[in-house]
Amino acid sequence: MVQYVGISQMRRIVEQVGIETILRRMVDELEGDYRRWPAFECEPRLASHSKGGVIELMPTSDGEQYSFKYVNGHPENWRKGLQTVVALGLLSDVETGYPLFLSEMTILTALRTAAMSALAAKHLARPGSRRMALVGLGCQSEFQAMAFAAVLGVTDLSIYDIDPAATAKFVANMRGRGFSIEQAADAGSAVLGADIITTVTADKAHATILSGNMVGGGVHLNAVGGDCPGKTELQREIVAGANVFVELTEQTRIEGEIQQMPADFPVTELWEVIAGRKPGRGSAEEVTLFDSVGVAIEDFSALRLLRKLAQETGHHDELDLLPDPADPRDLFGVLALERAPLAAVA
Amino acid sequence: MVQYVGISQMRRIVEQVGIETILRRMVDELEGDYRRWPAFECEPRLASHSKGGVIELMPTSDGEQYSFKYVNGHPENWRKGLQTVVALGLLSDVETGYPLFLSEMTILTALRTAAMSALAAKHLARPGSRRMALVGLGCQSEFQAMAFAAVLGVTDLSIYDIDPAATAKFVANMRGRGFSIEQAADAGSAVLGADIITTVTADKAHATILSGNMVGGGVHLNAVGGDCPGKTELQREIVAGANVFVELTEQTRIEGEIQQMPADFPVTELWEVIAGRKPGRGSAEEVTLFDSVGVAIEDFSALRLLRKLAQETGHHDELDLLPDPADPRDLFGVLALERAPLAAVA
Repeated sequence: MVQYVGISQMRRIVEQVGIETILRRMVDELEGDYRRWPAFECEPRLASHSKGGVIELMPTSDGEQYSFKYVNGHPENWRKGLQTVVALGLLSDVETGYPLFLSEMTILTALRTAAMSALAAKHLARPGSRRMALVGLGCQSEFQAMAFAAVLGVTDLSIYDIDPAATAKFVANMRGRGFSIEQAADAGSAVLGADIITTVTADKAHATILSGNMVGGGVHLNAVGGDCPGKTELQREIVAGANVFVELTEQTRIEGEIQQMPADFPVTELWEVIAGRKPGRGSAEEVTLFDSVGVAIEDFSALRLLRKLAQETGHHDELDLLPDPADPRDLFGVLALERAPLAAVA
Repeated sequence: MVQYVGISQMRRIVEQVGIETILRRMVDELEGDYRRWPAFECEPRLASHSKGGVIELMPTSDGEQYSFKYVNGHPENWRKGLQTVVALGLLSDVETGYPLFLSEMTILTALRTAAMSALAAKHLARPGSRRMALVGLGCQSEFQAMAFAAVLGVTDLSIYDIDPAATAKFVANMRGRGFSIEQAADAGSAVLGADIITTVTADKAHATILSGNMVGGGVHLNAVGGDCPGKTELQREIVAGANVFVELTEQTRIEGEIQQMPADFPVTELWEVIAGRKPGRGSAEEVTLFDSVGVAIEDFSALRLLRKLAQETGHHDELDLLPDPADPRDLFGVLALERAPLAAVA
């Protein structure tokens, strides 16, 4: 049997373990895998583009386990009351090729993306960062806020979204969770005095959520929304002036904020900072930028953690995805067909 | 909800609809999709190789639906009592990117591979072919026999496997199903007088199941077992002398029998024969060879048919893989977390 976590079991796991504990454990898992980054086989995602969006497969392996994520991106889905992004994933055993664990990954991806943002900020933001501006209050925003609070103690938020309904949703969801929230009139006001700026907007366009004069020295920019070709959030001049950290250079040059820059624009891969091979932030005045696009290794870490949580809590179901005949060559016998002569061919 | 067919529902569907009807409908589905082959986007499979085997993702899309299959190939799995190959797959909607149907594909792949073999033989074997030699009596063998019987009326079999236990399993499974079965002492005896020769052996090696002097004029060769780099079944001279038909040239040159041949060895893509663009068999004396490796389009056809069968029979379950908040931006709300201030960060 293959263990399965759907939306309802995911909800039970989060309820029992607590979202802060999950986010902290996710940061630990990610950090551990980032430290051993070269152990992973990681090819760029395999994308199938259509008029309405994209469907992608993101596989990776550390030689012991293999994972892939199925994920779409359809910017107009909200008009039909659907999610822009849904995802599912599988973890399997490399030695036998057998699937071990199948899970929903819409919520899991939101958790891993937020944990990844917090992990990058832990290594790149100025020590003592306490105030975060959050621009873009869609699906990811609450997860981002929770991760920065749980991991870095950032509970002082200034927020902005072009749509007041999104702002109202965010404020309602965050009420009673220990945040101090200031609603700004525009993106420029939101980022004033922030130590960390998180942009997580959804438009599939070269948008300019922030321009250069809005970003003060010493800030850490966490740019989450620019994550596919043709989709960026930051003015080019901000990127040009920042010390830029990426997940996987080859992929980020296509999908991230740096798609605006020349192919030789210097970047540092975050795993090298986490593994202690390269410096992170150079000075207290420097602007650091984590140009986040999301890579398969992060999904691997997230799936492995969720499997552990499912086993610890018992909150999982079983799927009969695998035949198990007594004689492995007897696949036909699994069907246990009645014996009858074949009907005549027409 | 995403509809789901596991092993138990697959068994119910086959029991209710009948394996012959399923194989015939599968041939019709495959034939229809082969006729409109250029409508598909089909990239070579994405493989992750390890010491013990390979894990592959095989995606394709016709612009309306998208499918992928997860499949492994681990030749030593039988030593642990496991299947050499297991598979699962997903069908989804291109317009929204939403998954529609998730299924086991170990049994489904055996059905589609057998149906594909029968479809190729329908177009390439001499009319009136009635006797088939079947060399290699592993997991696929009964499905091959059933498909040739159901689609072409081939019920006269001569069989051989190097392992007598595999032969005994095949004979036991086929008893009472209207076949006339002759157990041959070796592969050479098995193919004597055969109209169609199906080779479906499992060794991951350049084996020579058949050599040139065994294959008489007019025979149709259905070579199923040579399906990955380093794995072939036929002597080079047989391939050189045959009129060779393939699924997807680029993939077959890497994985099929023609990996033994120069890169410019002439082949015909089967879809062009089925679509009426190119001739199939040239004469009654010619040896035709279907160098089968399995391509994603066939899995697409198989998944779409199984979804129909599941809906027609009601034999499917539902998986809660997709969150469905009233406000699509409110993914966080799906968790329905209790409100409590965040615990202090350590």
